[in-house]
Amino acid sequence: MVLLGEHQAELDGILAGELAAVEQRFASELRSDLPCVNELAGHLEQYRGKMLRPTLVLVCGLATAPEQPLVEAHRVLATVVEMVHMATLVHDDVLDDQDLRRKGSTINRLQGNEAAVMLGDYLISHAYHLCASLDSQAAARLIAMCTNTVCEGELLQLDNRDNWELDEPTYFQIIRRKTAVLTGVSCRLGAMSSGGSPEICQRLERYGELMGTAFQIVDDVLDLTGDVSVVGKTLGKDLEKGKLTLPLIHRLAALGGEDRQQMLEMIDSHDPRMIEQVGQLLAEGDSVAYARRCAEQRVAEAKGLLDALPPSPARGTLIRMADAVIARQF
Amino acid sequence: MVLLGEHQAELDGILAGELAAVEQRFASELRSDLPCVNELAGHLEQYRGKMLRPTLVLVCGLATAPEQPLVEAHRVLATVVEMVHMATLVHDDVLDDQDLRRKGSTINRLQGNEAAVMLGDYLISHAYHLCASLDSQAAARLIAMCTNTVCEGELLQLDNRDNWELDEPTYFQIIRRKTAVLTGVSCRLGAMSSGGSPEICQRLERYGELMGTAFQIVDDVLDLTGDVSVVGKTLGKDLEKGKLTLPLIHRLAALGGEDRQQMLEMIDSHDPRMIEQVGQLLAEGDSVAYARRCAEQRVAEAKGLLDALPPSPARGTLIRMADAVIARQF
Repeated sequence: MVLLGEHQAELDGILAGELAAVEQRFASELRSDLPCVNELAGHLEQYRGKMLRPTLVLVCGLATAPEQPLVEAHRVLATVVEMVHMATLVHDDVLDDQDLRRKGSTINRLQGNEAAVMLGDYLISHAYHLCASLDSQAAARLIAMCTNTVCEGELLQLDNRDNWELDEPTYFQIIRRKTAVLTGVSCRLGAMSSGGSPEICQRLERYGELMGTAFQIVDDVLDLTGDVSVVGKTLGKDLEKGKLTLPLIHRLAALGGEDRQQMLEMIDSHDPRMIEQVGQLLAEGDSVAYARRCAEQRVAEAKGLLDALPPSPARGTLIRMADAVIARQF
Repeated sequence: MVLLGEHQAELDGILAGELAAVEQRFASELRSDLPCVNELAGHLEQYRGKMLRPTLVLVCGLATAPEQPLVEAHRVLATVVEMVHMATLVHDDVLDDQDLRRKGSTINRLQGNEAAVMLGDYLISHAYHLCASLDSQAAARLIAMCTNTVCEGELLQLDNRDNWELDEPTYFQIIRRKTAVLTGVSCRLGAMSSGGSPEICQRLERYGELMGTAFQIVDDVLDLTGDVSVVGKTLGKDLEKGKLTLPLIHRLAALGGEDRQQMLEMIDSHDPRMIEQVGQLLAEGDSVAYARRCAEQRVAEAKGLLDALPPSPARGTLIRMADAVIARQF
């Protein structure tokens, strides 16, 4: 056990060093000869989260071949997936037409949106540029296929805005495309770069997809029921944007005609206390528990897929990362 | 001469066939299993213009090796540059809050800014996906480098919004990055795919950059002085968006302190007749002629670079395409 602890500490040290290198690579790749571009790109610092996707590339690489060191391709691809993820965050933040028309005197906001569109494009462009530095086209092809699907997911979500009839299969389609494919491909790329067999690559991609799906379900639950001081961002954003998510889809399906109608009217009211009332309505049923169960099932399945890997500290980390998805409160 | 005419007709026939194939490839690559995505992508039809960039790929390929047929790489890259161009149009319209494009409503107007942002992302993602189907990374690397630069150009332009001190060097920086690098790289890719020597590739890239610069200057002149029924899009948009372009930069530099101040106040007034008044002020000087001369000089230089190519109908087409840039009224 002492030995295992030591190995674990060693792995954590490797990961910390590699992630710091990814951060540096990220910044150096984006550097421009234009000061205005560097200033704008500097704002991305505040977008940086837990670096889940680069971590998946690196840990899946190590879990696939525990005796081999990570190679340049792992670092490149870890940086690429972080760029892709950041690009989706930046474009996600762009407001819709209605908000733009309401801009009135808020010219700053408008300029912010325009710069956000271009900064997202700049990120995605640099992601492909960096990816094209690798010897093989295989990774570039996978990443581009993934971003095709992410865009489709975003468009499907847009198409279902204000659709109060949204059903579970469509909800799962949306989150698979917009979130899970990128975590899945991150895992596959890590395994591929370590020379993983087709079976291992497939299992780890599936692990990543299940984990991404669970992550998104929990994210959606927290948006409805979280504690704003813990979550650290405005709650009820999904509903405000006309996006139904799993707990409410489940609750609405369970309600009878009149109750359902009442709930929809309340959601539509744009009352500032709406999110509180929705929280109460959700508390009356088991829909939040249902959504959490959906996430837990996926995490359990994801962990099961790791049985095919040799025991290693990296495999242990993948298991803990999966558990952390459902444990998180923010 | 009869023979030349015959060869020309043959070339035109080849080009028409190849461009039709590019259009088909464009549509088939974008096809999705989601109806909402296909519906949105369908709007792109109306964005299709003269297909300048794919034409440059194809004609530069033929001009580099007149005896060789075009190959798959030419068709793939012609489709890729059209996708990249379309993506910039779609995102440009979001940035400019443009309502009209080629006499039709823009996607941001029809479907909202969010759908337009995502559709642009979808296009750029598919461009890289298609590009990654080629054997070599060389083209992907060039295209990604080019899109890095295009984004920088857009950001430099944004940064200079409402900058009434904008000077000519910065103006030329902006249009080189946002317009000319893509026409330049289109030409290089065509030459490369025909096995052109480094010198030919470089000359044709430069030809494309000069042509793209001339094209943008003429575009900017038309935005200030064109006939809306001929140009097919809202005029005076550049000024409304705080973008100074060559004729006005030149005119403002020639004006004395008070006249200059008056002109700037008028531009800033957002008076609906502003564009008319600016037109009158421009007519009082030779700034429009100056801007046109700048375009003509570049076209002349571009044509001179073609001397290194063997005589062929394709080379003749490149000469005529350069001439057409300054002849156009829309």
